[in-house]
Amino acid sequence: MSQFLDIFKGIKSCCPPIWFMRQAGRYLPEYLEVRKRCKGFLDLCYNPELAAEVTLQPLKRFPLDAAIIFSDILVIPHALGQKVSFEEGTGPKLDPLSLDSFEERLTFKNFFKNAAPVYQTIHLTKSRLSPSKALIGFAGAPWTLALYMIEGEGSRDFAKAKGQAFENEKVFTALLDYLSEVVSLHLIEQVKAGVQTLQLFDTWAGLCPATHFEKWITSPTRKIVSNLSEAFPNLPFIGFPKGIGTNLGEYVTQTKISGVSLDISTPISWATENLPSSLILEGNLDPVLLVAGGESLKKAIFSIHEEMQGRPYIFNLGHGILPQTPPSHVETCVQIVKGLR
Amino acid sequence: MSQFLDIFKGIKSCCPPIWFMRQAGRYLPEYLEVRKRCKGFLDLCYNPELAAEVTLQPLKRFPLDAAIIFSDILVIPHALGQKVSFEEGTGPKLDPLSLDSFEERLTFKNFFKNAAPVYQTIHLTKSRLSPSKALIGFAGAPWTLALYMIEGEGSRDFAKAKGQAFENEKVFTALLDYLSEVVSLHLIEQVKAGVQTLQLFDTWAGLCPATHFEKWITSPTRKIVSNLSEAFPNLPFIGFPKGIGTNLGEYVTQTKISGVSLDISTPISWATENLPSSLILEGNLDPVLLVAGGESLKKAIFSIHEEMQGRPYIFNLGHGILPQTPPSHVETCVQIVKGLR
Repeated sequence: MSQFLDIFKGIKSCCPPIWFMRQAGRYLPEYLEVRKRCKGFLDLCYNPELAAEVTLQPLKRFPLDAAIIFSDILVIPHALGQKVSFEEGTGPKLDPLSLDSFEERLTFKNFFKNAAPVYQTIHLTKSRLSPSKALIGFAGAPWTLALYMIEGEGSRDFAKAKGQAFENEKVFTALLDYLSEVVSLHLIEQVKAGVQTLQLFDTWAGLCPATHFEKWITSPTRKIVSNLSEAFPNLPFIGFPKGIGTNLGEYVTQTKISGVSLDISTPISWATENLPSSLILEGNLDPVLLVAGGESLKKAIFSIHEEMQGRPYIFNLGHGILPQTPPSHVETCVQIVKGLR
Repeated sequence: MSQFLDIFKGIKSCCPPIWFMRQAGRYLPEYLEVRKRCKGFLDLCYNPELAAEVTLQPLKRFPLDAAIIFSDILVIPHALGQKVSFEEGTGPKLDPLSLDSFEERLTFKNFFKNAAPVYQTIHLTKSRLSPSKALIGFAGAPWTLALYMIEGEGSRDFAKAKGQAFENEKVFTALLDYLSEVVSLHLIEQVKAGVQTLQLFDTWAGLCPATHFEKWITSPTRKIVSNLSEAFPNLPFIGFPKGIGTNLGEYVTQTKISGVSLDISTPISWATENLPSSLILEGNLDPVLLVAGGESLKKAIFSIHEEMQGRPYIFNLGHGILPQTPPSHVETCVQIVKGLR
């Protein structure tokens, strides 16, 4: 029934299914309207009625093949008891976690209660979503979560968090183990609530030194994929290890993930040549092209399709939609992709 | 005579030569002392006496094998007539270039006059540097320079600059061509003044979409390498295309560069297996490890050496030294590397 889910069953459809990372968000005036009605960004994430509305907004405008639940990767630290806030223009602020005391500071006790609005959002959204559209759940990968949790904010190099990780590798690995379990439980609950596919965002994979890649990226991701496939065999699961570079092959083989979202710098030709043919590729239009529009956007869409060489894939961006994106360019992009054969 | 230069002649020395990106800089108290004596950061870059002093500071403290001239990649736009300033804490600010008018806005007329202090710095430094130490000159690669010149400041995604590039590919390519020539001339002049090897910094290579990689990264770099090797055959030339990921093999083959500096996410094992054996590898300690120090630093140094498997290489970081780095950790690192066999 769903073109998106069919891809993972080996059923090729007429044209690639399409969705966009951050498709529900600041580039849509109707999102900004809803956003105004909530004091903080997290209030919106935790308001099932509004979060469901926002989740469905892009699908009302564009014939997308999937909705991704409106939430945030920092819901996990927040539901574990860490203080998280979002200030306009400065990005997320967390009460920084000290690695030494993470076991006392974090507690799973109220996790499901705290995160309950997310599952309610899924429930509500699912009931309003056409069965021809897939509903995507997501979480941040342990590495990316741990960086934010220790650093306390976004950063170009996350030097403080990485410093603590290097100085106390054993405890950092324990934190990643802990987060792997929490992420697994959060994702399992999302599937129970109605999502049909998952995406794991490892936004800062490119900041992991190659020497620690197996321990800090692959191993936690493998655990999560394994937990999920134990609970739900054949559930499509897409990884997005941004900036992972030449480690992508290892990542795919070791984690046994069923799909991978390519960042803008990964050539599709490299992916088709070097990654297993059973793997579902997703990507990888430069979000700036969606801002630019025009001939360069068209050319890039055709180029992605051509490079995929008939292999089934999901059309997406190589990173999230930028706030300054004109919705009309998104519409053009979807129309072109829907016409690809 | 120089262990660093010997590497490029196929002469292996007892232990890998070592230097650090940003080895002259804010982590050194003696640098901060000199910096105080100049009003702006560019005043320091353009003061041959002080710039030479700062260039040599790290070599007075540590037995490094090379000095890299104290300058900045934004000297090029500045010497072409673009307004450039550095404000404390906020990074560089440029009077943004509009792509349409770059030919009127930039002029090469006074370039050599404007950049003369850089060549004088080289001259001065060379006269004071032991012949056993190599002197490194450098420039920013056209792609990275163009991003700063159009965006007008540092950015996480350089969406404005990339947007203009996509919307007007022809003019953007012309700008890259122009910058390739300017970078070549600036580097040639540096060699004439006394540098014995070059490094080309393409800090934002990871922001180039794979589809435009040949046009915007490889092709300009190839032109520069070709211009330099025409003027100075056998001159060692190291590229640093940060975040280039799986495109690194193409970059090396297409540009005919003699060395490549690996970023932290590139596994050395990947490089030794996939890059030509004649290529000199440089790298790739995580700068955060130099901040952390201790056992994790030691372990990482030994791991790099082991992974290089006897192949001649230059020990370096995977990116620049962080300002919060304790100089004592730098000393420890150099000592360990000097003891590697």
